[in-house]
Amino acid sequence: MKAVAVVGAGTIGSGWIRVFERAGVEVRVHDPARSDSLPMAEAVADTDWVQESGPEELAVKQDIFAELDRLASPLTILASSTSALPMTEIARRVTRPERCIVAHPTNPPDVVPLVEVVPGERTAPETTRAAITFLGELGQIPIVIRREIHGFVLNRLQMALLREALHLHRAGIASAADIDRAVTDGIALRWAFLGPFAVEHTNAASLRDDFEKFGGVIGELFASLSSDPRGPGADDLKRLEAELDEISGGRTHSELVARRDRLVRELRALKAR
Amino acid sequence: MKAVAVVGAGTIGSGWIRVFERAGVEVRVHDPARSDSLPMAEAVADTDWVQESGPEELAVKQDIFAELDRLASPLTILASSTSALPMTEIARRVTRPERCIVAHPTNPPDVVPLVEVVPGERTAPETTRAAITFLGELGQIPIVIRREIHGFVLNRLQMALLREALHLHRAGIASAADIDRAVTDGIALRWAFLGPFAVEHTNAASLRDDFEKFGGVIGELFASLSSDPRGPGADDLKRLEAELDEISGGRTHSELVARRDRLVRELRALKAR
Repeated sequence: MKAVAVVGAGTIGSGWIRVFERAGVEVRVHDPARSDSLPMAEAVADTDWVQESGPEELAVKQDIFAELDRLASPLTILASSTSALPMTEIARRVTRPERCIVAHPTNPPDVVPLVEVVPGERTAPETTRAAITFLGELGQIPIVIRREIHGFVLNRLQMALLREALHLHRAGIASAADIDRAVTDGIALRWAFLGPFAVEHTNAASLRDDFEKFGGVIGELFASLSSDPRGPGADDLKRLEAELDEISGGRTHSELVARRDRLVRELRALKAR
Repeated sequence: MKAVAVVGAGTIGSGWIRVFERAGVEVRVHDPARSDSLPMAEAVADTDWVQESGPEELAVKQDIFAELDRLASPLTILASSTSALPMTEIARRVTRPERCIVAHPTNPPDVVPLVEVVPGERTAPETTRAAITFLGELGQIPIVIRREIHGFVLNRLQMALLREALHLHRAGIASAADIDRAVTDGIALRWAFLGPFAVEHTNAASLRDDFEKFGGVIGELFASLSSDPRGPGADDLKRLEAELDEISGGRTHSELVARRDRLVRELRALKAR
């Protein structure tokens, strides 16, 4: 894929532009808020891939996709950055649902490489394959979500941990900063290199040994975890804001973000060596 | 603290020995399985701290603690590496419950620095403070678990993610290797530097902005997460073993472990710079 269009260049769209440019792909941008914005027809003409990164509202994305479908060449793949909406719904009014797909990046896309590729019910298998190939060529790491499930995989895993973290904080078990440290100086040091299944495999002599030794204990823990469905609310905010200096380790918001991006890049370089 | 004893030198005890030696602390070992093992009385005499790392059985640990209590100087702190048992129970038969505490390391202790410090109901606040100071001097990162809760904090957070990962795999949403990648190439790249609360803070303009913008969406996701209490079972093992080559990225078990330890050490050096 030689030329792409980015439609909607807010935080996520801007990250995509950096990803495409870094890989030497020609990028055309449509975003009325930008001075270098092209009319949509001009942006998408003769592109192989359009990355839509507009507002997270179904009706808005359906309108954008209908327009993209009308303006782009029939073979152009239309991808959405949505983190929540199913392509089956977004593509309701396009004539090429088989060439429409979700490519949900991780924020920021040019720093964290994972992309969730989520085909809709009418997406063609060759579109999924083409997306995986193209994203890999860009230096991203695509995974395939086989069925449209709320939150896909990454956000569900992240929210499962956050739900328990909020529960432990609400129950006064540990300070917010200590709960964060359990992740940054504990589990995530392993998780940066071994995912949850590989961790089980390496926690004993083998996956089988792990399941035989610890399966029962793990089940007991599963049963004891929070199933509190309450999202973060005003009470949580009050308690957490009181600990915000400690959570931030005294760093400003922009220092935290800059440090994250710098360290994630160095960590990726470490893994690539 | 100048001299310590390690009682029980299996995987975890051996890691503790390396932690103590690295920090220049004199270590005496009691473990009948080792050739350098001292009789327990000799190992614990004139020590400031005893790190018990025996079998995870309450009756066994109660016996060991009763014996340590009889043999060690009255001021020696008696710490247990237990990952699950409450010190309130372990110390039932000691005369110094105020100087007994859980110091649960992360495996391997000499590679991953987090230690969960869990006082029992009768542990003195000064013992908790001394433990935090000592563990910090060793180069470990202690956090305080304020109440004895099953699985403490680290394992509860880890199991919350594993429960959802198993659910997604059982439901056929993604391959095990792709679920692992969502962690290693996605969320854990951030979590290695920002814990769950700091991630929320940096996901928007501030923690407050994040809660106001995404609190509702997060609550919807919380409500949709798995609450399946089944631990990993024979069916899961069968399905996961079929994907084990992909989970391992073609590496042998010992290659995975060696790579993990090497990379975690380099990652810690990166964070320390």
